[in-house]
Amino acid sequence: MYPDSLKNLIEAFKCLPSVGEKTAERYAFSIFDFDDDQLSLLKESLDDVRTKVHPCSNCNTLTEDELCYICSDSKRDNKVLCVVEDVKSVFLFEKIGMFHGKYHVLNGLISPLDGINPEDIGIDKLLDRINNEKFDEIIFAFRPSIEGETTSLYIKKILDGLNIKVTKLANGVPIGADMEYIDSLTLERALNDRKEVS
Amino acid sequence: MYPDSLKNLIEAFKCLPSVGEKTAERYAFSIFDFDDDQLSLLKESLDDVRTKVHPCSNCNTLTEDELCYICSDSKRDNKVLCVVEDVKSVFLFEKIGMFHGKYHVLNGLISPLDGINPEDIGIDKLLDRINNEKFDEIIFAFRPSIEGETTSLYIKKILDGLNIKVTKLANGVPIGADMEYIDSLTLERALNDRKEVS
Repeated sequence: MYPDSLKNLIEAFKCLPSVGEKTAERYAFSIFDFDDDQLSLLKESLDDVRTKVHPCSNCNTLTEDELCYICSDSKRDNKVLCVVEDVKSVFLFEKIGMFHGKYHVLNGLISPLDGINPEDIGIDKLLDRINNEKFDEIIFAFRPSIEGETTSLYIKKILDGLNIKVTKLANGVPIGADMEYIDSLTLERALNDRKEVS
Repeated sequence: MYPDSLKNLIEAFKCLPSVGEKTAERYAFSIFDFDDDQLSLLKESLDDVRTKVHPCSNCNTLTEDELCYICSDSKRDNKVLCVVEDVKSVFLFEKIGMFHGKYHVLNGLISPLDGINPEDIGIDKLLDRINNEKFDEIIFAFRPSIEGETTSLYIKKILDGLNIKVTKLANGVPIGADMEYIDSLTLERALNDRKEVS
């Protein structure tokens, strides 16, 4: 039905996350309305992200240089390390702009059921870094899940006795949430960790 | 914050319809997970659709050849012409596979308020074709709107006296719709055009 190249483009767009037939068709047709600048931006950046962008040699954040802009920024607090499970988390924190320490990106979380063991997520590199850079505090910023807990506990156990403060993100009721939709586990955690009104 | 090429890719994805910052970021990150085949499919088809695909010289449907597969199909009924407002409509009809006549794609609909006049949407080419190809029936398949009505009436007036049956799509309650969400104009039309239960 569609000309071959249009059919191919629709198939290609369907590889994007959560994009089905209808959306892919819509995207493909919209390419005809792109001006030349938009089209070359799309094509060139598709090439560039795959050739130029790679993990920072120190913290694994994505960068086009040897070190990412965070690792090479001497003004950041190099006593606090935020450990995250993927690169996206770094950019989430950077967007809120409230954290001024350093990051370390793991390659996911420990999940024995899925066959993902500590050595698979790059914990050795994290431990090397902790030994070399002498942090005062390590913050675990993993998604609240069994895998997140497992990974936190595993690393925490190794760090025991190193005199480093180990913390994790607070759990509780998210701001703006409708109370009736909060799951019971979250509510239980929020109740246990209740704070005095000051 | 993001490496330059990643930032560019996010900007490029934001040019797709209804894609905002979050979705564009999600798409851009997903490109790292594309295998080489998927990436080259995307890049090559982006090039191809812009260089190889063009309107059919007869009916304006998109094609990679001189004539589209519909115009060059001798088995189709060449006595019935379905006039649509854009190329997407052709593919919508082809998907349901119930229409076996020919198509003619206009370049939109007449809309004096937006400065779109009959000569802007290629009505001359349509009239030439009607004069040459001797259709028995012309079906207008425009979206139900003032512009659709205007365009239908304008062409109908020109065709008066040519002894061609001129029809348009039925309006009414869409199948599966929730009655309480049907607008009053649609309901009025559905009531006026009610059909005997047979």
